[in-house]
Amino acid sequence: MDRHDLKRLLDQVAAGRMTPERALERVRHLPFEDLGFAKIDHHRALRQGYAEVVFARGKTPAQVATIVKRMLAGRGKQNVLVTRADAKTYAAVKRVARAAKFHPLSGVIAVERSREIRGKGLILVVTAGTSDIPVAEEALLTAEMMGNRAEALYDVGVAGLHRLLEHKGKIDAARVIICVAGMEGALPSVVGGLVGVPVIAVPTSTGYGASFGGVAALLGMLNSCASNVSVVNIDNGFGAACVASVINRL
Amino acid sequence: MDRHDLKRLLDQVAAGRMTPERALERVRHLPFEDLGFAKIDHHRALRQGYAEVVFARGKTPAQVATIVKRMLAGRGKQNVLVTRADAKTYAAVKRVARAAKFHPLSGVIAVERSREIRGKGLILVVTAGTSDIPVAEEALLTAEMMGNRAEALYDVGVAGLHRLLEHKGKIDAARVIICVAGMEGALPSVVGGLVGVPVIAVPTSTGYGASFGGVAALLGMLNSCASNVSVVNIDNGFGAACVASVINRL
Amino acid sequence: MDRHDLKRLLDQVAAGRMTPERALERVRHLPFEDLGFAKIDHHRALRQGYAEVVFARGKTPAQVATIVKRMLAGRGKQNVLVTRADAKTYAAVKRVARAAKFHPLSGVIAVERSREIRGKGLILVVTAGTSDIPVAEEALLTAEMMGNRAEALYDVGVAGLHRLLEHKGKIDAARVIICVAGMEGALPSVVGGLVGVPVIAVPTSTGYGASFGGVAALLGMLNSCASNVSVVNIDNGFGAACVASVINRL
Amino acid sequence: MDRHDLKRLLDQVAAGRMTPERALERVRHLPFEDLGFAKIDHHRALRQGYAEVVFARGKTPAQVATIVKRMLAGRGKQNVLVTRADAKTYAAVKRVARAAKFHPLSGVIAVERSREIRGKGLILVVTAGTSDIPVAEEALLTAEMMGNRAEALYDVGVAGLHRLLEHKGKIDAARVIICVAGMEGALPSVVGGLVGVPVIAVPTSTGYGASFGGVAALLGMLNSCASNVSVVNIDNGFGAACVASVINRL
Amino acid sequence: MDRHDLKRLLDQVAAGRMTPERALERVRHLPFEDLGFAKIDHHRALRQGYAEVVFARGKTPAQVATIVKRMLAGRGKQNVLVTRADAKTYAAVKRVARAAKFHPLSGVIAVERSREIRGKGLILVVTAGTSDIPVAEEALLTAEMMGNRAEALYDVGVAGLHRLLEHKGKIDAARVIICVAGMEGALPSVVGGLVGVPVIAVPTSTGYGASFGGVAALLGMLNSCASNVSVVNIDNGFGAACVASVINRL
Amino acid sequence: MDRHDLKRLLDQVAAGRMTPERALERVRHLPFEDLGFAKIDHHRALRQGYAEVVFARGKTPAQVATIVKRMLAGRGKQNVLVTRADAKTYAAVKRVARAAKFHPLSGVIAVERSREIRGKGLILVVTAGTSDIPVAEEALLTAEMMGNRAEALYDVGVAGLHRLLEHKGKIDAARVIICVAGMEGALPSVVGGLVGVPVIAVPTSTGYGASFGGVAALLGMLNSCASNVSVVNIDNGFGAACVASVINRL
Amino acid sequence: MDRHDLKRLLDQVAAGRMTPERALERVRHLPFEDLGFAKIDHHRALRQGYAEVVFARGKTPAQVATIVKRMLAGRGKQNVLVTRADAKTYAAVKRVARAAKFHPLSGVIAVERSREIRGKGLILVVTAGTSDIPVAEEALLTAEMMGNRAEALYDVGVAGLHRLLEHKGKIDAARVIICVAGMEGALPSVVGGLVGVPVIAVPTSTGYGASFGGVAALLGMLNSCASNVSVVNIDNGFGAACVASVINRL
Amino acid sequence: MDRHDLKRLLDQVAAGRMTPERALERVRHLPFEDLGFAKIDHHRALRQGYAEVVFARGKTPAQVATIVKRMLAGRGKQNVLVTRADAKTYAAVKRVARAAKFHPLSGVIAVERSREIRGKGLILVVTAGTSDIPVAEEALLTAEMMGNRAEALYDVGVAGLHRLLEHKGKIDAARVIICVAGMEGALPSVVGGLVGVPVIAVPTSTGYGASFGGVAALLGMLNSCASNVSVVNIDNGFGAACVASVINRL
Repeated sequence: MDRHDLKRLLDQVAAGRMTPERALERVRHLPFEDLGFAKIDHHRALRQGYAEVVFARGKTPAQVATIVKRMLAGRGKQNVLVTRADAKTYAAVKRVARAAKFHPLSGVIAVERSREIRGKGLILVVTAGTSDIPVAEEALLTAEMMGNRAEALYDVGVAGLHRLLEHKGKIDAARVIICVAGMEGALPSVVGGLVGVPVIAVPTSTGYGASFGGVAALLGMLNSCASNVSVVNIDNGFGAACVASVINRL
Repeated sequence: MDRHDLKRLLDQVAAGRMTPERALERVRHLPFEDLGFAKIDHHRALRQGYAEVVFARGKTPAQVATIVKRMLAGRGKQNVLVTRADAKTYAAVKRVARAAKFHPLSGVIAVERSREIRGKGLILVVTAGTSDIPVAEEALLTAEMMGNRAEALYDVGVAGLHRLLEHKGKIDAARVIICVAGMEGALPSVVGGLVGVPVIAVPTSTGYGASFGGVAALLGMLNSCASNVSVVNIDNGFGAACVASVINRL
Repeated sequence: MDRHDLKRLLDQVAAGRMTPERALERVRHLPFEDLGFAKIDHHRALRQGYAEVVFARGKTPAQVATIVKRMLAGRGKQNVLVTRADAKTYAAVKRVARAAKFHPLSGVIAVERSREIRGKGLILVVTAGTSDIPVAEEALLTAEMMGNRAEALYDVGVAGLHRLLEHKGKIDAARVIICVAGMEGALPSVVGGLVGVPVIAVPTSTGYGASFGGVAALLGMLNSCASNVSVVNIDNGFGAACVASVINRL
Repeated sequence: MDRHDLKRLLDQVAAGRMTPERALERVRHLPFEDLGFAKIDHHRALRQGYAEVVFARGKTPAQVATIVKRMLAGRGKQNVLVTRADAKTYAAVKRVARAAKFHPLSGVIAVERSREIRGKGLILVVTAGTSDIPVAEEALLTAEMMGNRAEALYDVGVAGLHRLLEHKGKIDAARVIICVAGMEGALPSVVGGLVGVPVIAVPTSTGYGASFGGVAALLGMLNSCASNVSVVNIDNGFGAACVASVINRL
Repeated sequence: MDRHDLKRLLDQVAAGRMTPERALERVRHLPFEDLGFAKIDHHRALRQGYAEVVFARGKTPAQVATIVKRMLAGRGKQNVLVTRADAKTYAAVKRVARAAKFHPLSGVIAVERSREIRGKGLILVVTAGTSDIPVAEEALLTAEMMGNRAEALYDVGVAGLHRLLEHKGKIDAARVIICVAGMEGALPSVVGGLVGVPVIAVPTSTGYGASFGGVAALLGMLNSCASNVSVVNIDNGFGAACVASVINRL
Repeated sequence: MDRHDLKRLLDQVAAGRMTPERALERVRHLPFEDLGFAKIDHHRALRQGYAEVVFARGKTPAQVATIVKRMLAGRGKQNVLVTRADAKTYAAVKRVARAAKFHPLSGVIAVERSREIRGKGLILVVTAGTSDIPVAEEALLTAEMMGNRAEALYDVGVAGLHRLLEHKGKIDAARVIICVAGMEGALPSVVGGLVGVPVIAVPTSTGYGASFGGVAALLGMLNSCASNVSVVNIDNGFGAACVASVINRL
Repeated sequence: MDRHDLKRLLDQVAAGRMTPERALERVRHLPFEDLGFAKIDHHRALRQGYAEVVFARGKTPAQVATIVKRMLAGRGKQNVLVTRADAKTYAAVKRVARAAKFHPLSGVIAVERSREIRGKGLILVVTAGTSDIPVAEEALLTAEMMGNRAEALYDVGVAGLHRLLEHKGKIDAARVIICVAGMEGALPSVVGGLVGVPVIAVPTSTGYGASFGGVAALLGMLNSCASNVSVVNIDNGFGAACVASVINRL
Repeated sequence: MDRHDLKRLLDQVAAGRMTPERALERVRHLPFEDLGFAKIDHHRALRQGYAEVVFARGKTPAQVATIVKRMLAGRGKQNVLVTRADAKTYAAVKRVARAAKFHPLSGVIAVERSREIRGKGLILVVTAGTSDIPVAEEALLTAEMMGNRAEALYDVGVAGLHRLLEHKGKIDAARVIICVAGMEGALPSVVGGLVGVPVIAVPTSTGYGASFGGVAALLGMLNSCASNVSVVNIDNGFGAACVASVINRL
């Protein structure tokens, strides 16, 4: 509801083409749907070109299924993405969305309705170790469902630099890079120093001891001396892919 | 030193157009300059289109001046930026760089040599409060020195939403937004929800008590539910502008 | 046992209307009941108009049932509330209190004996997301059991401001507002800025990663720039409702 | 800018009594004043019955004086309060506001323009120790400037219970209580257990060692078992008084 | 092995009453028994008058049983105490020690062999709430097994002061007091202020949210303004009773 | 004001030997003196045999001097102790107390009025390093002013065990031991294992880096496996000596 | 790929003994094997003389077995070590490696193919308590698999010094010492003070309460005043043995 | 004082070649010197081949000078090293030690009396940035004073990998490497992966914001995946050099 919309509305009222009551109604009728326990924001998907997304943790399978059902009934043909789901939630979703596919490693349920590529370049998802792959997969699937070409490069931590440098070509080909690392918070610094494109860093909670559930990696990434690196929450592969996706459409 | 460069080098050696000794020399002669206490990376500026930058904290005024002098002697005509400087450092820099200007609020010294605009859109710097302005100024000056159009919008914290919503037009005009906030870590969430472009969040250390030097804002920003928000280090206005600048050239 | 009571007692003793022994006895006989493992404070319920409350965590089902039984045998007709209970505890309580109802989402057991409304206005419970509902329900049920009209408004986080602003009318109708949020510690700031009544903020432990079990939300709330906001412990829906209830009777 | 206002505006436009341009202008012209570095929110003062307030830390003396000057030029006759000020800021303010008084212990500058009492009862400010007095004074002055009767009770920490119990009469007389404590986070619990009115707890940073700048007191207060206690930020005497003031007008 | 012992040994060697080899042997043969995975320190029990103690956590049932068996075979008639045990460990211990009794609330296994009272006065164990009882029981049983008279006073938290003050007589009768509290770190301060004897404070991990597993209580206790309070580790009822026991023999 | 006192009072009233008014007065007239900003608790000194103590930090020199003056005017002949004072405060105190002596290392001002030894044994103060001496001195002076024989043993950290073991005789002679350490939190464990008497551990803030202002030492002490060790706040030499003094009189 | 290698390569190309294409290929063909989800670094084992190692946590049993299979197929005859494995992973590994042995206490799977001793001296693994043994066993097995003589000394915590001093001979015989401790972070300090060889400290997460999962021990070790002590991550017995092994070959 | 020494002593006594009194005296007379406030451990220097060292922080200039004087009067010809000193301390030391040299950047005072090289190889000190040089200099000087060849390599952080890789030759030449980094905790991981020798990591407190005084770097280093890396305290250049020196003599 920006100034421009308001101006047009007022013009219509002034011109007698719309009653004040109806104008008020339109102002009020914001494009989200109220399910009581949740308010679906169709508008955001439309406005930001996102897929529609449900964060499953903290919701019952029935709640998630209801939300997905309403999303599929919406106007657009956006893809629908459920994150942090388990097998039970998948079973419930499957009943309302035949096309739903489950990726158990990352807990992602994807309902693909569009294969349109809207991102201008490649989003590359890089991990430091094998145990960072679940978070990387969440990022990869999210990036794809939001209309991007996306590729992965796993297990290229900085304690064995040659593994990373070997793939310099792939790294140079990306328009946006997502770096996922739990014990080696330095990966984004090293990668960021090699390229001239934005790097989104995702700390993961996969370490032990003084990794403190991802805090060590998070701090390492925030202190990066590579000036093209920004950071999202621990384990937030989804968020990293959203940021990358928004950038990739610019 | 990527695969392509290496290939060409090897071709020249194979063709007898270059001796192995000289090839080795060229491989070794990477484009940075070694001052002993610091290694100036002219290459990064060239490669990433950045201004040349010196982080003054932890360096003596003489060291900073020496680095600036070498930078100005470099091949390109990049702008030179000194961050976290004080009056003494400025005096030393002024002697080697007549054009240097000092911004005491943010501690930035700027030596402008080029006004070329290389960023495609507007970078908007938004602050929650008046005390966040020094960090915002660092971001603003950095963005400008790196060839972007940049504007500021100050004191629009979320506890008085109308102050923010009033400027919806300006916010919608930006291609990248930098949100600077010390007590109201929520500002990026609110701004991020209003727009469809990338938002770079910068926590500041300006609060007191349970703000813990910016940690409260940092955590609030990392937990943002707006999916176009990523975060940089506390008080790192410079870094936010670098990330924004890299994005703005895409 | 205040000065006034003591004065009256001494007067009676001085007038020979009461023996010193009996006076001593009365002084000693404070209105709580000692079950050995717990001391039921009937007096607090009387004095503060609260329902009688048992915090079930850390107590065996048998202990909780015994306490509830004694409460129901007490002088007043206060409602009895058990918080943080599970199905086993409910089974035990059900045996001594036929009217007990269990709310599994929040773990609240409610034994309603009075529907008297003692609060002067409406207590509104607002959540940022769906996963904050269990804590909100604890607050809602507590507020009701303590004699208040209470309503809920769920899933109106600040990353989608229009969802919140749509309900401005409901928000304006409240005399006290409880804001429950786990990832968006900013909700109370935004709500607090919209109204002129007290806002009680409840951080929840529902986030992940850098939400640190509710700490991020807690810090965000403590740093709120809206000056009508105060905060209770993480997940403490019960406490928020008690504070709201005390205020609502003023 | 609520629904009611909008409806009336639209009616006027529909009735031809107002042009769309002018309506738009009025919508835009929110009642705050833009000084560039700060946006004065006259509206909040009007809407919430608060005094106008400037948080001086992080602002230059000149900035504070400019803001105060504009506040005094505003429509209402609200008191003006500057918090966290020092002698230099006071000197600057004194020049634009003859009536300004400085309280160096707490750093409060008060410009009293109205002595109207708008709070219904007494606000009592209690401290655990002598070193908590500066924060308590900020609370006391704020409460008074916002139109409340306010009194203080200092140095009644729980390690010497009789000092507190001696003043039971005063405590019982209060409608809202503010508890200020840096080493004895327990004071609000004890006071809260003695009364049936809201208690606002303010941790202070006055301890040493494992008090961690007020964190120990903050945590103690958040864990309070007295259910009428809520908490504000460390050293935030101002905020506590605002919350108390909002409650005291109900 | 102190100077006095060494002197006597050297005298015997010098007098030819002992060979150097044998002296060396005696110096080496320190009074502990080596089971490979553990070294039983019979000497400490003898030296400090303690019961023999096994900390079961991190040891297998078989290991614990082996240690207990060796302890019972030792010279003295000390009581044997196993802390942090579960039912499986109890079953294993029962096989080697018929007299063993299990206290499941606290996880203590006690093998009583002596009822001699060696402590000079009463050790009183006080808890703030019902959920603190397991830790209190560990303290109580330890105190008894180490030859002290010990009593308990449960659920007398400071948010209901009259519950505590009612038992002033019992409190005054103690020679050493152990205060156990998880949410009300203030209890030791209040109790410490009422008496002139040592108070040992034990924080417990029984709270939730911002109690951070006992940290809030721990910090509250360390900041106590009552100068007769010292603190042991979170949940360390055993340690508190040991300290109390050492004091009670002075 | 215990039950016994109340009983006697009531008897006197019943017997007509005291009017109710006077009885009330006596109940009210608790033995502390109210200076407004502070309440001197003469009673505690009497009751607990402590010296009278002022914690100077957070009080003005004038406030401290006023309190000391009133203390010296009190009934008893207790020593008067001011902790955490500086030279200015000493100058102010010196004016009201000729006998005052200042110990600048620890910031202690001592006004000795009694040399009576009331503690039964020796209190030994041990430090790990030279930089722990200021806190140790506070403990030493406090112990002496409270009527104990006290001695010091400095710079005997565990990284050079022989320095400690050399003084085994002195250590064995103590009835209570105070262990002061900032980098070697292990000292109390080692000392505690050598003796059978209570050990009070005092962490100090004298380390750097990961000592975190004494936190490392504090945690090390709380985790001590020597079961005769309890802990006080970081740098709290005064508190350690108070605890030791209370124990030493048993 | 160091300068020397590159030089030789260029020489060969210049001499026409190698085509540029092939040279490029060799530069690219770094000696690791890419399994997609993991990149096996045979080179590191060769280069550093390590056994080949798999960190099992975060990998599926099938993934671990695949990696082990490839390792056994490698050129060298290095031992293969799997850390942090469970019974399921062992079953999968057993199928591809008959010689595999499982150590359930530490979760180590060892496939011994070489008994060559390459370390020059003895590596001694010392623990403070019995519950530190699992981490110590990981260190012990790792040290052995990497070609070192290694011995263990368990349960010699500093609270019972004589247990440690008794084994002075064994301690003096070591060339490198690994100190493993969860509650007594002081053990490395004490051991380090007794010897003149490097001490690697390993904090463990075996304590409770204020041990904070090993943080207390970690901090104690970092603050060690013994100057031959360095530290690895909490529970990182493997890492400690690697460091010790690298040192032991010097 | 090990078993061997004791055995010989006892032999002498048994043989009548030494009186028991004298034997006792020798046992007692450990080789440290007691200055009251400090105990100089000449023995450690002898035993471990270290220079004699004074940690100046927390000691007065006079104390440091006295210690240095005694050290110079000792038997050996060890170098004397004072760390964390300032100009005042230097002035005091200069008076007792003509040869003393002051390095203001690191605060090291060095009194060189021996140039003997006792370390077998090169110790290389590497820093990530210019602001890490003070800590690196402390390490460099310490390594030299302890009889090692030592070199430095500054400003080779991982965000510009080529700066590091350029010096691969120098890195390969080292026998022990010390990595000093404040913002790039990853440097030791990268360096450790390039070499087969021990790497000692030193976090520094030179960053800002979320570097938390060196904690971010510390955590990054503890989580290193390079298995030849161990860590010392933040800013502890001295300790790193001691560890390196002990290793370099093996």
